[in-house]
Amino acid sequence: MRLTIGVDIGGTKVAAGVVDPDGLIRDEVTHPTPGGDAEALADVVGRAVAELRERRPEDAIAAVGVGTAGFVDEERSRIVLGANLGLADEPFKDRLRRRVDLPIVVENDANAAAWAEVRFGAGRGSRHVVCVTLGTGVGGGIVMDGELKRGRYGVAAEVGHYRVVPYGRRCGCGNHGCWEQYASGRALVAEAQDLAKNDPARAARLLKPAGGDTARITGPDITRAALEGDDGALECFRTVAGWVGLGLADLAAILDPECFVIGGGVSDAGDILLEPVRESFARHVTGRATRRLADIRIAELGSKAGIVGAADLALC
Amino acid sequence: MRLTIGVDIGGTKVAAGVVDPDGLIRDEVTHPTPGGDAEALADVVGRAVAELRERRPEDAIAAVGVGTAGFVDEERSRIVLGANLGLADEPFKDRLRRRVDLPIVVENDANAAAWAEVRFGAGRGSRHVVCVTLGTGVGGGIVMDGELKRGRYGVAAEVGHYRVVPYGRRCGCGNHGCWEQYASGRALVAEAQDLAKNDPARAARLLKPAGGDTARITGPDITRAALEGDDGALECFRTVAGWVGLGLADLAAILDPECFVIGGGVSDAGDILLEPVRESFARHVTGRATRRLADIRIAELGSKAGIVGAADLALC
Amino acid sequence: MRLTIGVDIGGTKVAAGVVDPDGLIRDEVTHPTPGGDAEALADVVGRAVAELRERRPEDAIAAVGVGTAGFVDEERSRIVLGANLGLADEPFKDRLRRRVDLPIVVENDANAAAWAEVRFGAGRGSRHVVCVTLGTGVGGGIVMDGELKRGRYGVAAEVGHYRVVPYGRRCGCGNHGCWEQYASGRALVAEAQDLAKNDPARAARLLKPAGGDTARITGPDITRAALEGDDGALECFRTVAGWVGLGLADLAAILDPECFVIGGGVSDAGDILLEPVRESFARHVTGRATRRLADIRIAELGSKAGIVGAADLALC
Amino acid sequence: MRLTIGVDIGGTKVAAGVVDPDGLIRDEVTHPTPGGDAEALADVVGRAVAELRERRPEDAIAAVGVGTAGFVDEERSRIVLGANLGLADEPFKDRLRRRVDLPIVVENDANAAAWAEVRFGAGRGSRHVVCVTLGTGVGGGIVMDGELKRGRYGVAAEVGHYRVVPYGRRCGCGNHGCWEQYASGRALVAEAQDLAKNDPARAARLLKPAGGDTARITGPDITRAALEGDDGALECFRTVAGWVGLGLADLAAILDPECFVIGGGVSDAGDILLEPVRESFARHVTGRATRRLADIRIAELGSKAGIVGAADLALC
Repeated sequence: MRLTIGVDIGGTKVAAGVVDPDGLIRDEVTHPTPGGDAEALADVVGRAVAELRERRPEDAIAAVGVGTAGFVDEERSRIVLGANLGLADEPFKDRLRRRVDLPIVVENDANAAAWAEVRFGAGRGSRHVVCVTLGTGVGGGIVMDGELKRGRYGVAAEVGHYRVVPYGRRCGCGNHGCWEQYASGRALVAEAQDLAKNDPARAARLLKPAGGDTARITGPDITRAALEGDDGALECFRTVAGWVGLGLADLAAILDPECFVIGGGVSDAGDILLEPVRESFARHVTGRATRRLADIRIAELGSKAGIVGAADLALC
Repeated sequence: MRLTIGVDIGGTKVAAGVVDPDGLIRDEVTHPTPGGDAEALADVVGRAVAELRERRPEDAIAAVGVGTAGFVDEERSRIVLGANLGLADEPFKDRLRRRVDLPIVVENDANAAAWAEVRFGAGRGSRHVVCVTLGTGVGGGIVMDGELKRGRYGVAAEVGHYRVVPYGRRCGCGNHGCWEQYASGRALVAEAQDLAKNDPARAARLLKPAGGDTARITGPDITRAALEGDDGALECFRTVAGWVGLGLADLAAILDPECFVIGGGVSDAGDILLEPVRESFARHVTGRATRRLADIRIAELGSKAGIVGAADLALC
Repeated sequence: MRLTIGVDIGGTKVAAGVVDPDGLIRDEVTHPTPGGDAEALADVVGRAVAELRERRPEDAIAAVGVGTAGFVDEERSRIVLGANLGLADEPFKDRLRRRVDLPIVVENDANAAAWAEVRFGAGRGSRHVVCVTLGTGVGGGIVMDGELKRGRYGVAAEVGHYRVVPYGRRCGCGNHGCWEQYASGRALVAEAQDLAKNDPARAARLLKPAGGDTARITGPDITRAALEGDDGALECFRTVAGWVGLGLADLAAILDPECFVIGGGVSDAGDILLEPVRESFARHVTGRATRRLADIRIAELGSKAGIVGAADLALC
Repeated sequence: MRLTIGVDIGGTKVAAGVVDPDGLIRDEVTHPTPGGDAEALADVVGRAVAELRERRPEDAIAAVGVGTAGFVDEERSRIVLGANLGLADEPFKDRLRRRVDLPIVVENDANAAAWAEVRFGAGRGSRHVVCVTLGTGVGGGIVMDGELKRGRYGVAAEVGHYRVVPYGRRCGCGNHGCWEQYASGRALVAEAQDLAKNDPARAARLLKPAGGDTARITGPDITRAALEGDDGALECFRTVAGWVGLGLADLAAILDPECFVIGGGVSDAGDILLEPVRESFARHVTGRATRRLADIRIAELGSKAGIVGAADLALC
């Protein structure tokens, strides 16, 4: 049986797992992400891979796939820009190869997670899938005709940074009106904060876990309140869902997928998010009177998608 | 040598040509497009094909590709919606097969034209190309990893109908703020009309061929005035080019192509369009400080792209 | 008792009435509006005034006020631009004086109607009122500290042409995104047309009186359907009402009136319009958590407001 | 000669001055603004007034005008909301009367400054003036027919919080897309920061005084760079000026003033700001082909406008 290792480099931890051909994680280790030094990072990834291999027969592992935030080049080798990790133009595959004698590929983490969902999760069975991760920001992965699309320079599917509002909210990328400023977890929190300012009574339930301080409202708190039926929280979700659906409508005009898979922290709200997203999508997509509407589903693999996808892509 | 026939069904004429493997048109016939009846249309297409075949040895032609406006299904067989032709849910391939005993495929015309540019025109040599046709409306074709992408239901690349302005100008598709309302030939005319209203002196050169009637200003007139250096016309082009560049920036965020190919009547202005498009693109694309910027080129095949692309796709 | 004559010059008819100090119309005559010639128009207005005076004792009438569409200068004398009437830079007061030996003032018709509502209608008792007329377009009148505000050049209160959407729908004034493109009767019809395109079933009731032709849907038809409870029509009203409320919120930020009075054909829908307008206003006005919200009311004088206001202003 | 005292309560200091009928400040004292307690603030204002009176003959001072940030009620008596000072629903006039035995009025500080400009500064001689203060935020004051317009509840002229971009940048007021997010000093800094992110070379001159840290770029630094001809700084000004002009165009549609007076820190750039503001205004104002365009001028009284205006309003 072919086994590969998938590594998910996050801002706070490095998680690595042995993954089988069915997408199941057979073994897993995690380490804290070391600060801003490619050598230290490669050491940690190398150690994690070594630990997992030690517990298996020699030759059990065929390859290693590494998923990381940031722009990764089209050779699946260099980290062109990994702002969260403090890396730029970093030949990470080469660096890691000095520690690991296996085939290695480096992938964008949103691409890895998307691939996992298409192969083993909510996108299973579809050959045209767009995955959208609604986390702090908005990430994406595009699968067309059964293949992950990386674009010419490896940076396709940066869907969070297409513009939905000319002259809209400022984005960390330097642009204005990027989708992720309206459809992300951060946007959800912004909605709650604005509600607290404009209608404190309606935001009472949201302000409670934050000790009355709007700056301390968190996404998970809003989700919890929404699941309990709180009106204010549900309103925040409806607003964000409206933008999610509008964005999916634009992506459908361009990519015409069979289904969208929505992951990330915001998707933990399940149907509370999904229902108004579908409604907004159906109201905004071009040609809606005649076209087949894409299906919209919640991701199934949760936070493990990165490991599974990176592992599976290691041999693609 | 493999020869195929490409047919381009337009609103006013049906053009068919024999195309060789180098994308050269060896023979061509045209007929007027008959009004709103699929039978009559199939007759005309069938006749055109027959005429071209009669002039060649039997078996010289290997297949027929038909390019048509509107939504075409993923089987490349049915015209799901062809508003301009008055067709809906039309099994055009089957209908044509009763007249033509060759392999037939039906394609969206913008897809066909895009394919031609990638194979034989401005996109030659690139495996990641987005073609944008700036005609009365805005059409598109997407080639990724060397393959034309049709999406799950055949209607990908409807780039003219992704939204650039929430609550923006009304679009014939029933939505608001679609890109084609800002980046098309019709948008160019609208700019000229508004200029004429707000600053008649500045619009004098534009109003001249229209006999002073803003409703009669045409795109080609504006292009001609711009090529002659008229300030008002150049301003109209700069405005439209700004929107074109902004849209390409959004498409780059999603698709990361190596190059964009711009065709359609508006592209006849060449550098007058291209220069401000590039400037706008560079000012709007996400990650511009670190990413490789896609090349932006004018289409090379002009109005023949539809025939050539349809012919070449007939055997794909 | 002081009596004055008010004249309302509309696109199709000239209506003139004798008005008493309580704003009651004691006598009225109407004539068709003559086409595009100031002399002919002055003849008709002069004749109407003469007819009304003939039926009264000599000296019964103290003055004449004329309300007309278009820009009127700050001297209340010239029609700077009256596009509907085909007039420009027209010294109408002087022209009329050659026919009528009474004090004359010329006013913008929306100003006249607004003044009538403040003196005798829905704005009675308030010294800070903004009147908004939702007709084919959107007109306005501003009363602050009990005085009608005309601005420096007589063209204040052109509220229909402040911009609510950058790069929004084209406006007849040559700009884009003007409020009247979103909040007028024409906007209401546009909503119905778009609904018919996107969701014909939901628009069935709206299409009926138009014989199935979206181009023939009218505002009164939509109002009627809404009053009967039709879902599609109610949705059109909610959308337009959202924009009306948003615009009133902007006007409140600038003018802080005690109340808004909404007139024009769209206001015939009464509470169907008013309720979502109030909701939208309350959701959009700045400082809503602490400020006193302006009252929002439907106009009371209907189509007679123009005559009454012009008559009352004749002596101001 | 009638003398009055004007007091300008700012976030960091309380400035008070004796002002003569020509708007000249004859004497002045300043104290630090005490933190968040109305009693302490009234003590400081009372002391400042007492100090100024001690140096004059008894009865020399006729009245006291106090200008303060925040919403002031229509009675010119209560501070409804003074967020910067930590005050809400504060009866400041009554509180101050226990310390000062003179007629007292409380005014919004932007209104006071506007009034000063109309009486003694750049708006002198005009009876229809809109003053706009481009500071950290955007404030305003409206004079129509020679009178300061406060609205029904005292909060008119909050022009910084009318909306220019639907779903635009978040504003401290709880709304989105407020004008002050695009036209203020803070907006100018945001432009510089975005430029630094997107085009560091072009922003080099701007980053220098900030030690390379975008977060430390200040408005005065940008102004200085612009005055020295730096391209990046000039681009920031052009962008902000574009929004200023667009906003003035909307205000002209509503208020039709004879002139706009622009003050606040951003106006220190003089013609560098003014020229593109005028251009943008002329390109955006409705009816521009026929109307008289309002004049646009830089404020003349600088930071003293608050004292002078409050003093002059004390007897109005």
